[in-house]
Amino acid sequence: MSQVQIVEVGLRDGLQNESVHLSVDQRFEILKSLAHAGLKRIEVGAFVRSDKVPQMAGTAELLELAQKFKKENKKFRDLKYSVLVPNLRGWEEAENLNPDEVALFASSTESFSQKNINCSIQESLERFAPVIAKAKKKKIKVRGYLSVCFGCPFEGKVPEKNVIKLVDQMFKMKVDEVSIGDTIGVADAGQVKSLFKKLKNKHPIKKLAGHFHDTRGQALVNIMAAYDLGVRIFDSSIGGLGGCPYAPGATGNVSTENVLYLMNGLKAKTGVEIQPLIELNHQIGNWMSKSLPSQVSRAGLLKV
Amino acid sequence: MSQVQIVEVGLRDGLQNESVHLSVDQRFEILKSLAHAGLKRIEVGAFVRSDKVPQMAGTAELLELAQKFKKENKKFRDLKYSVLVPNLRGWEEAENLNPDEVALFASSTESFSQKNINCSIQESLERFAPVIAKAKKKKIKVRGYLSVCFGCPFEGKVPEKNVIKLVDQMFKMKVDEVSIGDTIGVADAGQVKSLFKKLKNKHPIKKLAGHFHDTRGQALVNIMAAYDLGVRIFDSSIGGLGGCPYAPGATGNVSTENVLYLMNGLKAKTGVEIQPLIELNHQIGNWMSKSLPSQVSRAGLLKV
Repeated sequence: MSQVQIVEVGLRDGLQNESVHLSVDQRFEILKSLAHAGLKRIEVGAFVRSDKVPQMAGTAELLELAQKFKKENKKFRDLKYSVLVPNLRGWEEAENLNPDEVALFASSTESFSQKNINCSIQESLERFAPVIAKAKKKKIKVRGYLSVCFGCPFEGKVPEKNVIKLVDQMFKMKVDEVSIGDTIGVADAGQVKSLFKKLKNKHPIKKLAGHFHDTRGQALVNIMAAYDLGVRIFDSSIGGLGGCPYAPGATGNVSTENVLYLMNGLKAKTGVEIQPLIELNHQIGNWMSKSLPSQVSRAGLLKV
Repeated sequence: MSQVQIVEVGLRDGLQNESVHLSVDQRFEILKSLAHAGLKRIEVGAFVRSDKVPQMAGTAELLELAQKFKKENKKFRDLKYSVLVPNLRGWEEAENLNPDEVALFASSTESFSQKNINCSIQESLERFAPVIAKAKKKKIKVRGYLSVCFGCPFEGKVPEKNVIKLVDQMFKMKVDEVSIGDTIGVADAGQVKSLFKKLKNKHPIKKLAGHFHDTRGQALVNIMAAYDLGVRIFDSSIGGLGGCPYAPGATGNVSTENVLYLMNGLKAKTGVEIQPLIELNHQIGNWMSKSLPSQVSRAGLLKV
């Protein structure tokens, strides 16, 4: 039986792309429910400018609450918190709150890098270096997100060799884990197999994660394709929170419930229960006054 | 490169579960667009009582138009039409219009059989026999649908051995092809692998089709699981027409566009173009005043 790690990104990658903003209290409620459902890796938020990304306002407060929650509950000893830190300023906000992991972000294409973070790919990697050095000193794990690894809304299909070169560089810089992102949900199963086959020839597969969006309904087949090659870490978002800024009305992050349904079918061990997440999904839907896209939660489990 | 046959069931299994009813003219427009996109197997409709299933009213007229269309267009010589015939009365309506195939329907569970067609499983198979005999005499192919092969809304998980026994019986009765249905979209990839492994040990894989609903977002992984075992015939519905009568608001048939996206990724040859189907999807959506669920059509192909 294979162990699979689900990295729950709904509180960050999900909420960040939602127009309804949730309060710190609501986000803390979500975090606790995620932990109770069995999730062990939770991305709590991002230390970004709250005038630019108001959805992430109060990340410090939320992380503080989360740390207190963990301290008070022995059963959550193994729970790991991650936060996105775009630069040294973000790091300085994060470090006193002792996250288990910090996440950094780079893009596979120059256009996406410029439009998203206003700098070239190499400049973004240069910003990584001092954060990595400081995190290593504090024994905080570093996760690198590499976005638009399969297709870019501005440049189209992304050459594999560009992605591989950037993954190489990230590992050389001592990033502990690289999450390969299909940010606009355009990858097909053939691309996924091809890229991960090449990556696993160069790097330990246990340091690679798959971050698939469901914009074209392909996230689960892409996850299965990566799983078949040995990938055992997948990012997903409760309810499919997120949406896709490049295709209005389209879905974004793959939903945690759908991924778990697949993993259960594959007899992979995640340690996470689906039913409490379905209930959480509906609670978040109430707060946001909409139905979240996860099909598993919409239809429910078979109860006979 | 593998050849894959897509059986387009939108005009029957899809429309039959939609509350907006399309006219014969609209359905004929859809049929022509499907043919132009490259689909080679189209389920045209059902010879059922139009007071019970008004969505299928005019199936005879539609099939007549379809046959005329095929006769007038040499490039559609290989196009095959199928119609559902529940019994001898349906057969009598169908036979003069020379469909290439008739489809029969049975259930894997007694409760589903009773609720759907008001008879036991064995009674439904007995009704098959005379239709099969007549179809064979006219060299018309016979397709058998076996529904709720993985889970039933009334009986829960369905034992594999029940399904296998019924498939055995259908082939013994000279059905040419059996379509294994996940009618309520509850199958997981593990169940699919397990059942098809057992079925292919007893029957030629080329006589088995996969009919997966996307109610829990698992249709494509289930198709990929079956594909990996050698299944090369899959049923799908343009746009994901259909819905799920057992889970209000949930999706039903897997969409043809999503299946094609997967097949293109797997380098399987279908002969079908996605872009014209996206346009057809939007046309049907306009007629029905709603957005059809296919994620590929909602997001569109990557155009850069």
